[in-house]
Amino acid sequence: MPELDFNSDLGEGFGAYRMGDDDAVLAQITSANIACGFHAGDPRIMRHTVAAALKNAVAVGAHPSFPDLQGFGRRNMTLSADEAYACVLYQVGALQAFVTAQGGRLQHVKPHGALYNQAAADPVLARAICEAVRDLDPQLYLYGLANSELTHAAQALGLAVRHEVFADRTYQADGTLTPRSQAGAMITDADQAVAQVLGMLREGHVVAVDGSTVPVQADTLCIHGDQPGAAAFAQAIRQALTREGVSVRAPQRA
Amino acid sequence: MPELDFNSDLGEGFGAYRMGDDDAVLAQITSANIACGFHAGDPRIMRHTVAAALKNAVAVGAHPSFPDLQGFGRRNMTLSADEAYACVLYQVGALQAFVTAQGGRLQHVKPHGALYNQAAADPVLARAICEAVRDLDPQLYLYGLANSELTHAAQALGLAVRHEVFADRTYQADGTLTPRSQAGAMITDADQAVAQVLGMLREGHVVAVDGSTVPVQADTLCIHGDQPGAAAFAQAIRQALTREGVSVRAPQRA
Amino acid sequence: MPELDFNSDLGEGFGAYRMGDDDAVLAQITSANIACGFHAGDPRIMRHTVAAALKNAVAVGAHPSFPDLQGFGRRNMTLSADEAYACVLYQVGALQAFVTAQGGRLQHVKPHGALYNQAAADPVLARAICEAVRDLDPQLYLYGLANSELTHAAQALGLAVRHEVFADRTYQADGTLTPRSQAGAMITDADQAVAQVLGMLREGHVVAVDGSTVPVQADTLCIHGDQPGAAAFAQAIRQALTREGVSVRAPQRA
Amino acid sequence: MPELDFNSDLGEGFGAYRMGDDDAVLAQITSANIACGFHAGDPRIMRHTVAAALKNAVAVGAHPSFPDLQGFGRRNMTLSADEAYACVLYQVGALQAFVTAQGGRLQHVKPHGALYNQAAADPVLARAICEAVRDLDPQLYLYGLANSELTHAAQALGLAVRHEVFADRTYQADGTLTPRSQAGAMITDADQAVAQVLGMLREGHVVAVDGSTVPVQADTLCIHGDQPGAAAFAQAIRQALTREGVSVRAPQRA
Repeated sequence: MPELDFNSDLGEGFGAYRMGDDDAVLAQITSANIACGFHAGDPRIMRHTVAAALKNAVAVGAHPSFPDLQGFGRRNMTLSADEAYACVLYQVGALQAFVTAQGGRLQHVKPHGALYNQAAADPVLARAICEAVRDLDPQLYLYGLANSELTHAAQALGLAVRHEVFADRTYQADGTLTPRSQAGAMITDADQAVAQVLGMLREGHVVAVDGSTVPVQADTLCIHGDQPGAAAFAQAIRQALTREGVSVRAPQRA
Repeated sequence: MPELDFNSDLGEGFGAYRMGDDDAVLAQITSANIACGFHAGDPRIMRHTVAAALKNAVAVGAHPSFPDLQGFGRRNMTLSADEAYACVLYQVGALQAFVTAQGGRLQHVKPHGALYNQAAADPVLARAICEAVRDLDPQLYLYGLANSELTHAAQALGLAVRHEVFADRTYQADGTLTPRSQAGAMITDADQAVAQVLGMLREGHVVAVDGSTVPVQADTLCIHGDQPGAAAFAQAIRQALTREGVSVRAPQRA
Repeated sequence: MPELDFNSDLGEGFGAYRMGDDDAVLAQITSANIACGFHAGDPRIMRHTVAAALKNAVAVGAHPSFPDLQGFGRRNMTLSADEAYACVLYQVGALQAFVTAQGGRLQHVKPHGALYNQAAADPVLARAICEAVRDLDPQLYLYGLANSELTHAAQALGLAVRHEVFADRTYQADGTLTPRSQAGAMITDADQAVAQVLGMLREGHVVAVDGSTVPVQADTLCIHGDQPGAAAFAQAIRQALTREGVSVRAPQRA
Repeated sequence: MPELDFNSDLGEGFGAYRMGDDDAVLAQITSANIACGFHAGDPRIMRHTVAAALKNAVAVGAHPSFPDLQGFGRRNMTLSADEAYACVLYQVGALQAFVTAQGGRLQHVKPHGALYNQAAADPVLARAICEAVRDLDPQLYLYGLANSELTHAAQALGLAVRHEVFADRTYQADGTLTPRSQAGAMITDADQAVAQVLGMLREGHVVAVDGSTVPVQADTLCIHGDQPGAAAFAQAIRQALTREGVSVRAPQRA
């Protein structure tokens, strides 16, 4: 019976600001990537978001970013490996403290935004991130884009990897996502989204926009939570996958 | 044989900035309070300062602050108990991650600057700080001003407390430090400093500026590191105390 | 014919975050207090908010704050007079640049949140703020709480002052606002709100919660924009005041 | 008689931190580029640095940066043109306020660090910076690397440009500076430095590391202030140039 984890970014408010409908998303997902203060999130929001995830029996992960609150962590930055290592370790440690204080256990780390995207293509940055994760706790899962430098680095360091795939984005022949700036990048039809995910799970590949077939391992599905209808879209996909015999749940340790 | 811990604030640079001579101070102390990024310190500096402390066999503590980099954490702020709890937990968790990643163990927490001073007088703030420490790890020592609301709160919560005293500051009849703005606040003579500390250790009290006698427990001595001559002053006191039969070392777990 | 200015805080988003419905509020007010980046607002939002105000023929003011993005500028802080002066001058200058670049002219300065509240009671802080305003441009209006240290300091320095009053808050016998924590602090009935403002304009006083009469000068009315129904409430008051013969407009230079 | 401006970055401390010896450098230069808070500098330091420059009759310029205090503005970032425009306008406006409040006039803008370097090669970023300067005050000088996209954009927008050259760096055949990572990048001999500058002033070109001759206009010389011996090096060059008949002074408005 195929398994799939549903993950989403949570706790992305800051101070007096709110972002997304965390409560609605929590009901649909199995893993939460919680912002750690560098692109979003502040200590109080982190505490409350960890509590909400634990209450909903959703696995808790850290969602570290470049230090760029003004840009929501979406702007490319050039950090040395030493800087990247330390920024990731700092954020994951801070988030872990809230989990520990509430009697839980940190499950995974998923880099955010530009850090995630750059690490997918830059082996030096990817390795720095994964070393920070391993040095803190080698049992942590690393969530990264399937077929990327980030997942390669994690595997090389012996981390348990969860390959992330997308239901609402199309793929290119080289296995990367079609940029949002291009036509056909988004999948808005729930049936098409379900079909793409089922293909990944059953066949181990996805059909790219040019019709070619690209191998991809699907461990965890990215659920977007910051747009209207996001929770409903996630619910529809989850129900359809469940009907098809997919077990939607967080990674299970051996 | 009386024991005394020597503690000092370390890692208080930020980015391209440096503050104090950490190497010289590390040679004189037994416990390091390492800045956590809110008043000073950044992830890379935290990593390197933890490494330096561990290399020198100096016990590592977290030195959390109000979020006030511009004011170096010295400006009074009004935080709710919820905000204070979360800010402390965030910072201590971040610092702990660097200690864990390097194979060490976090020993203590000492609040910084205005957070330390306000918590000495405000029982609500003091309790919030101590709850964060306890929830993360009830084995952590809490370093606080002797005879303050902070040490009272820590004891009430069952934390192991280390009462901090000063060799270079005079005391008032109510047990508080003479404000720096007043004449006679500072002790610059090493013999006088040593005599004050020995009195605390042997007699359990200090002679206040008005000549009265104030009970005080001396567990850990604050060593200032950010002024010229600070390391030499610390060395002179340490040598004199050692000659007098005081064992200068970090707290020893039972 | 009595005159009254309607002012509201605008541009209080940050980065990816939004706050309030600026477009709806702009249609009801005559002066905008635009956040300057220390409690809210970032350079891009400041630029766009200035453009929206100028397009709506609403007078533009700066809304400086303590440096406290995490606390939205609502937390008390202790700044020296030198620090407060410089923080205000920095923020007002930054906002002024956007006004100048778009061909407008900065009209006024209204401190935000805790800075506003503390300056109402602290003559040293009040003077530091007003000196910064005067040194940049002595033609700027200073908006401050009627009967406060802030307006007193502004007048002593020769600044043109606009005394701010509230339609949705009750007053105490000493002229201060009833704290929100107390019953009867808020006025939610539009008729009562209009009556309170008309009394201020026509009689020059307000009836306090204990029934006593307190002199108050009403130059500018605070319109809250961050709550549901705020724009509709403002519109109801504006229409009623207009019917009563009040001219709602920004201050007119001699 | 050839003229040359000497410029240096000043006011690059932050909060409790200091950087460089501003007093020593001020005695050697004719134009100061003052940090505006995004990579260094805070409101109080900006105020005091502007005062020091005006007291020394040194022309005052703004030194805006990417928002990157942790990285001292030296890390590459990807900002949209809209973000870059607004960040520059914000910072220049803030610095201008301190100049205005002290009775001076802002003379120029020189971007800092990674912003300067990226704008030298990126025409979109360069144009955004120059538009912000022009929209605030079209009389401001733009200081940029000679033969760069930044100076080209400034000229295209009608700004008065001052081409910056270096005495302590060698040039490559394409007119760019030899990267510090390469051997022969630095010039530490004062005679060689003077000869390079005199060649630029008298011949209008510089001899590159490969022996080729590169045309370069020399309007303003970059004086580094953050290294030991920097002020003495600057003094030696200034005295030698003066002996050779060069007039060292800030740009003179027509």
